[in-house]
Amino acid sequence: MSVPDQTVRAPRSRAPARKARTVGKARRPLPSPTGASHPVSLKRLKSLAGYLIRQAQLWVFEDFNETLAPLDIRPVQYSILTVIRENPGLSQMALSQVLGIVRSGVVPLLDGLESRGLLKRTAHASDRRSHALRLTTDGNALLDRADVLVQQHENRLIQKVGRRGHKQLIEILKVFGKRDDRD
Amino acid sequence: MSVPDQTVRAPRSRAPARKARTVGKARRPLPSPTGASHPVSLKRLKSLAGYLIRQAQLWVFEDFNETLAPLDIRPVQYSILTVIRENPGLSQMALSQVLGIVRSGVVPLLDGLESRGLLKRTAHASDRRSHALRLTTDGNALLDRADVLVQQHENRLIQKVGRRGHKQLIEILKVFGKRDDRD
Repeated sequence: MSVPDQTVRAPRSRAPARKARTVGKARRPLPSPTGASHPVSLKRLKSLAGYLIRQAQLWVFEDFNETLAPLDIRPVQYSILTVIRENPGLSQMALSQVLGIVRSGVVPLLDGLESRGLLKRTAHASDRRSHALRLTTDGNALLDRADVLVQQHENRLIQKVGRRGHKQLIEILKVFGKRDDRD
Repeated sequence: MSVPDQTVRAPRSRAPARKARTVGKARRPLPSPTGASHPVSLKRLKSLAGYLIRQAQLWVFEDFNETLAPLDIRPVQYSILTVIRENPGLSQMALSQVLGIVRSGVVPLLDGLESRGLLKRTAHASDRRSHALRLTTDGNALLDRADVLVQQHENRLIQKVGRRGHKQLIEILKVFGKRDDRD
């Protein structure tokens, strides 16, 4: 299967010069990429939209995680909280389906958010084996703060691709956001 | 940090109906997503390009892995082989930089490809601590076969987003493909 994200990407800061200094080690200058005087060519990879989507996603995750670090909220946690707020009473199964998260993966994620007091599970009205998910007052408050930071993150993405590119991206990629939902 | 990809995404087939049948278990009909009669709303998430990029990337990885399964080549391995073919004699450090893979992550990846006889490391001409990377004859042959399958995968992406959308994607996202290289 795929290599976990955290082993794939070298840590990168939006302010690499500052970061390098804080590491406290003098770095010797890097040799030119090929060990010769030619720059490295990525012609083939850059012609593949799949490769560029992956690179964009790595940037998105890094920037999201840096931006949301003060709240300790990762992308998948933000998605869960947002979907529950938009659909109070949602079942775990529905959440798992709509976000494409395996059920065995969604349980520890919900456990974590519940133990932080951000959501609560109550017995489901129509299916006792299921749980109805709702944000707590704290969960709503945290999500309000998260929304502000997520907008900052999204604004950086707009800076990166331009306002027109950003609109086009949403239009082109919306086909991937469609799951079992019908809205 | 981010949750590894494999825990996040439920396995999905391009032919879910057929797959469900082969599982051999009668599935009871799923309750409606919220446990009520309303479809699940993802309005907020679908307004965020970052969310859609992630969803697109999950689709890309799944389709890539399914398509390349006969060759046992994952996206990161394909990227490595492609960059080495395009830049014979590349150093490990340059490879790591240009693909944004941490050095501790690149070594086992190269070990795996070398043990499959797909690439070889030779002492670097200008830096004895480094290695020069080259594809073997077998590596070149495998990459030729991989390229055919990757094109099939890319064609499915084109079907998904349309030919115009695909062109726009490459144009918009190329900003993320730029690293230390200067081509």
